[in-house]
Amino acid sequence: MERYYVDPYIKKCKRIFPEQGRYGYYRYDMNENPEGLPEDFVKSVLKEITPEFLATYPEPDIFLNKYAAFIGAGYENVLATNGSDMAIRYMLEIFCRKGKKVVTASPSFEMYKVNCSILGLEHVPVSYELDLSFDVGKLVNAIDHDTDIVVLLNPNNPVGTAYTEEEADIVIKKAEDNGAVVIIDEAYHYFYERTFIRKALEYDNVAVLRTFSKLFSLAACRLGVVISSKNIINSIKNSKLTFDANAIALKFAERIIEEPGLVERLIEVEKQGKEYIMDFLLEKGYEVMDCLGNYILIKTHGSPQEVADRLKEKEKILVKTFGNPLLSGYIRVSVGSEKAMEFFAGKFLEADY
Amino acid sequence: MERYYVDPYIKKCKRIFPEQGRYGYYRYDMNENPEGLPEDFVKSVLKEITPEFLATYPEPDIFLNKYAAFIGAGYENVLATNGSDMAIRYMLEIFCRKGKKVVTASPSFEMYKVNCSILGLEHVPVSYELDLSFDVGKLVNAIDHDTDIVVLLNPNNPVGTAYTEEEADIVIKKAEDNGAVVIIDEAYHYFYERTFIRKALEYDNVAVLRTFSKLFSLAACRLGVVISSKNIINSIKNSKLTFDANAIALKFAERIIEEPGLVERLIEVEKQGKEYIMDFLLEKGYEVMDCLGNYILIKTHGSPQEVADRLKEKEKILVKTFGNPLLSGYIRVSVGSEKAMEFFAGKFLEADY
Repeated sequence: MERYYVDPYIKKCKRIFPEQGRYGYYRYDMNENPEGLPEDFVKSVLKEITPEFLATYPEPDIFLNKYAAFIGAGYENVLATNGSDMAIRYMLEIFCRKGKKVVTASPSFEMYKVNCSILGLEHVPVSYELDLSFDVGKLVNAIDHDTDIVVLLNPNNPVGTAYTEEEADIVIKKAEDNGAVVIIDEAYHYFYERTFIRKALEYDNVAVLRTFSKLFSLAACRLGVVISSKNIINSIKNSKLTFDANAIALKFAERIIEEPGLVERLIEVEKQGKEYIMDFLLEKGYEVMDCLGNYILIKTHGSPQEVADRLKEKEKILVKTFGNPLLSGYIRVSVGSEKAMEFFAGKFLEADY
Repeated sequence: MERYYVDPYIKKCKRIFPEQGRYGYYRYDMNENPEGLPEDFVKSVLKEITPEFLATYPEPDIFLNKYAAFIGAGYENVLATNGSDMAIRYMLEIFCRKGKKVVTASPSFEMYKVNCSILGLEHVPVSYELDLSFDVGKLVNAIDHDTDIVVLLNPNNPVGTAYTEEEADIVIKKAEDNGAVVIIDEAYHYFYERTFIRKALEYDNVAVLRTFSKLFSLAACRLGVVISSKNIINSIKNSKLTFDANAIALKFAERIIEEPGLVERLIEVEKQGKEYIMDFLLEKGYEVMDCLGNYILIKTHGSPQEVADRLKEKEKILVKTFGNPLLSGYIRVSVGSEKAMEFFAGKFLEADY
């Protein structure tokens, strides 16, 4: 028993961290790009990482000015964080009172729920239907006067459904009427085209989160961006660390958005990979869900956990399984290039019995 | 006026961030290593940064196991953060109640005070004397039943005094009796030899913070380490982001502590630089304070701000000035190699009139 104060919510938390030792495996379990950025491009950026650069504190503004222009927003509307992980933490810390509600779809990205436990907020999960469709009406109904934050992950993960513009408007309106902030998490943007950035710039109470871990293939570097009203960005600035995103992440990010054709090429490579694996599995009679992001859900013949275990032990391939009953028949597989998916496809067929 | 909840403490904060646009300057203002790590070493580490590595989420344990062995602690006693910046935030968030006291020397590292404003904690500054000595008795007296945290920056910055083992014991004992946690911030360790790591491992309520931004010359990368009791480390683990330190920082850090002779060489280079600049300035009749870390305080002949402005405008050299009346006659200058200090010395003499 400690003889000093420990925050009571943190004391009660039981955290599970992602398994380590993944470097030696083929990683299809965490929606990373299994292969990463083009090698020549990476080498050209690394040339700029000098001893002096490494020794100097980061300067986010060079990147932020370019990024704002890249997405058609102003400098005052963007902010860089240590991954979306940190952006989510800031949002929940600043815009939600202890004991007040955070409404999300369920299942969705786990860290919203986890941050609610850490911070003493009430997580209100709105469940998917048994057929894996989502009733936005139920989410709208869950928003009330005790709601401080509503989260739309668009497309959602692990179940890959997306919100229409009309649905987003209804949610934002209901949140606004109840004095709540709406987080639209676009982690999987670029794989999926529709964006609600315009809403983040139009409404005072909407923030879009983006990450450089998915399409931009920089999960190692930790870079997230918040796009929002000047008021929300200023509140985060008041709360943030002095140095949040590191300079290597900022440098890579700056070069990625400047490199002609690179973003389009990354989108195209993943698209081909997804077409390949979807066609392959459908032809083999599998029930597969295109999750709109760089991941698919496959209903396995064998037990998903056993298939995953066999893939891991025999083939050094990692995939994701679920405890949630809605998804207990599925594995989630990250989608990379056609080559990466061909490799996966053969091994998967052998392991699924 | 926002129509949603904003944390009232954060709303009241007025933050000042470090000036950007420093890459083109000679930087002696933020206690970075002006030159950085040896170039060959940096190149050899960069070879390990592949597209696949960049695309993969960080794994801190490889580094943490090696680091624990490096400092003679256990894996359960260490934790990596996104710079000390994040370590300080975690400590204050977890171990201090709203409205309770955080006792620090003053002036000291600004972020303790800033985090108190952000989090709604009461900052209790214990002032240095007019002769820039520090009376530890006053700090001990400031610790009471409303104190949740006591901070010892050792050596302190910007005034470079250090605590003896006896002084540390008295502070820890008084904190323990009052149910407070003691943070011993060793940002400038290795420049200054004495460490209180043993206290962090012996007492339940003591945490030592280390950074890779100073001697290890990785300010761009953002890496801090907390060394403490299993209980304190576990509480931070319960509260922390899933991914805190990035994989590039972890990779560099791992290689730095493994590289034979590198740490000793970095210490030696800075030592020579400090000897050179101290001798030079004393010979010229300057009043100089060796601050024990990689920085010195120089009492200028001219107005410190004017000297700093001239150095910046004419020579592209940055140094630190102070608003605090105790330090208003001084500039603080980061110390690097003898070559870096020779360069500074000549320009400084010309600018100080």
